[in-house]
Amino acid sequence: MNDTTLRETVASIASPNESLTPRLRARLDDLTKPRGSLGVLEALVERIGLIQHTDRPRVDRMRIVTFAGDHGVAARGVSAYPAAVTPQMVRNMLAGGAAVNVLARHVGAENIVVDIGVNDALDDAPGLVRRKIAPGTRDMSVGPAMTRAEALAAIDVGIALANDAADEDVTLLGTGEMGIGNTTSAAALFAALLGLAPREIVGRGTGIDDDALARKIDVVESALRQNTPDLVDPLGALAAVGGFEIAGICGLTLGAAARRIPVVVDGFISTAGALVAERIAPPARDCMIFSHLSDERGHAVVLDAMGARPILNLNLRLGEGTGAALAFSLIHAAIKLVDEMATFSSADVSDRA
Amino acid sequence: MNDTTLRETVASIASPNESLTPRLRARLDDLTKPRGSLGVLEALVERIGLIQHTDRPRVDRMRIVTFAGDHGVAARGVSAYPAAVTPQMVRNMLAGGAAVNVLARHVGAENIVVDIGVNDALDDAPGLVRRKIAPGTRDMSVGPAMTRAEALAAIDVGIALANDAADEDVTLLGTGEMGIGNTTSAAALFAALLGLAPREIVGRGTGIDDDALARKIDVVESALRQNTPDLVDPLGALAAVGGFEIAGICGLTLGAAARRIPVVVDGFISTAGALVAERIAPPARDCMIFSHLSDERGHAVVLDAMGARPILNLNLRLGEGTGAALAFSLIHAAIKLVDEMATFSSADVSDRA
Repeated sequence: MNDTTLRETVASIASPNESLTPRLRARLDDLTKPRGSLGVLEALVERIGLIQHTDRPRVDRMRIVTFAGDHGVAARGVSAYPAAVTPQMVRNMLAGGAAVNVLARHVGAENIVVDIGVNDALDDAPGLVRRKIAPGTRDMSVGPAMTRAEALAAIDVGIALANDAADEDVTLLGTGEMGIGNTTSAAALFAALLGLAPREIVGRGTGIDDDALARKIDVVESALRQNTPDLVDPLGALAAVGGFEIAGICGLTLGAAARRIPVVVDGFISTAGALVAERIAPPARDCMIFSHLSDERGHAVVLDAMGARPILNLNLRLGEGTGAALAFSLIHAAIKLVDEMATFSSADVSDRA
Repeated sequence: MNDTTLRETVASIASPNESLTPRLRARLDDLTKPRGSLGVLEALVERIGLIQHTDRPRVDRMRIVTFAGDHGVAARGVSAYPAAVTPQMVRNMLAGGAAVNVLARHVGAENIVVDIGVNDALDDAPGLVRRKIAPGTRDMSVGPAMTRAEALAAIDVGIALANDAADEDVTLLGTGEMGIGNTTSAAALFAALLGLAPREIVGRGTGIDDDALARKIDVVESALRQNTPDLVDPLGALAAVGGFEIAGICGLTLGAAARRIPVVVDGFISTAGALVAERIAPPARDCMIFSHLSDERGHAVVLDAMGARPILNLNLRLGEGTGAALAFSLIHAAIKLVDEMATFSSADVSDRA
């Protein structure tokens, strides 16, 4: 690592404050319900309190950051959709018509869309957060997708957006992405960093047929062969087979961890960004909440390898931040239970003998 | 069956209108997302459309009905909490301080609390829906918990509340309950109707220790022996080992099915009411949506035996309607996606080749 922002960010990531656990636990146990009966919701309250270093966790302002970037490897026919869909969907998101917009509104979260590497000028795109590093990555099946400098720059974009969020009192962040070809890139990263076989983790993405799936596996294997020397470290692997949006997610996660903001990780591609972040800075892992188990083949294997337990299992395979948005609602509910439920003494309810 | 209301209700339950499936599917496939990529949310849209007999399903008004009743068997020491907690929690719910209140508010649902069999006059309980059949059931471990007439009367209460909901344009109903001792009753019903061994399905309820768990299994076995002759039909089983709130849930489910309102079934105890409803009227099953897999031992076995696949798995074991409330939010999200997402043509996004 030779980047000052990244080095300083990583250095400032603190471990959760475990000393708060008894106070968080006592508060939960005083609510008018059998102890532990709210299951995962109680665990979320504890986790968020530890991350935020408080016994009164807050999620008043929630934001999903959707990073968009194109992939040179899309030219290899690894997606069911043409690459032109990336900028088209960016415009759709800015107009509020994508799934992530509907779900963000539903749960009361903000959604910002970041051009971190789309192959389109997007001049006519009001509301777009413009942080383009390059108009898409290069084809990873013949060489590195990005230079290390490009990957670092994209990570820095994510860190800066986390710092902006912290400065604006955002209390819960979610990751999201849009980029035709990015399940191919994410699968290659998982193979490189977790030592998994491509055929175990390459899936159908947006819905490719058997021929395209075989091609996609070939492309990932080729990318791993072409880039072998760069796969020895997480930043090298990210540059070699990652994508701008995955690097942005990695940076957002690291920046959020440094500012003690819980990060809700969306699906398959976001998990790749989170994995790179964890490899760069293991303590960042404590700030990650995995929203859902994707229907994309390989996600279960990857989450298992990471020891992560997702909140939801709804067979989603859309990305954008849709799973993160749905998880936001459950997290918000958990915090409200602590804030709004009566206690045994206040409600004059008999506790157990 | 000798009850006119029940007979007429059962007779008017229609099967879902499967002919609408292609139109619902086409609408989902036209939204700007890969086909099927919203997984369970898409399946929910289809289910609700078929139940409501429309290609534009609605969930504008959502209501959770929480039935409260006491259990004679509570005197056998089968719960971690004293029976006095039933009326105490009813008052807590009416004051808005229980978990179900917080979650209903969070998801934008109404919550009504019905005294269908609480062992307390509850004179000072404004807002309570007063439908008391009796002040609690009798001890099922020595004889029938209810007479058939009492069970029928409690079912009728549920049917009437479903009809009220339909008349008030409620478009989504959820079940809930409060009743110290009712996991014992629900377990006995599952054993009777599904032929499962008590030790497989009797769990720790609100959190009993090993001694109380052994006692609870004994009590259920004793109830099944004492009431054998009554277990041959679902209404007989309900009267023998059920409870007023379980009968109310059964009635609400049947009434909702007759009026084509989807019913979101809460947890372990609500599932017992839903099972009795399904045994009385098998087509009612098509209107049931199972909200979550409870942490209560036995729920997984029961749902599996019923062929039911719950939406959430959050280790909840609280009841009241809390799981139904959380599922409401996902169902509402699914309907909003259809209403608010752009289509490929409207957003000028390229569909797959």
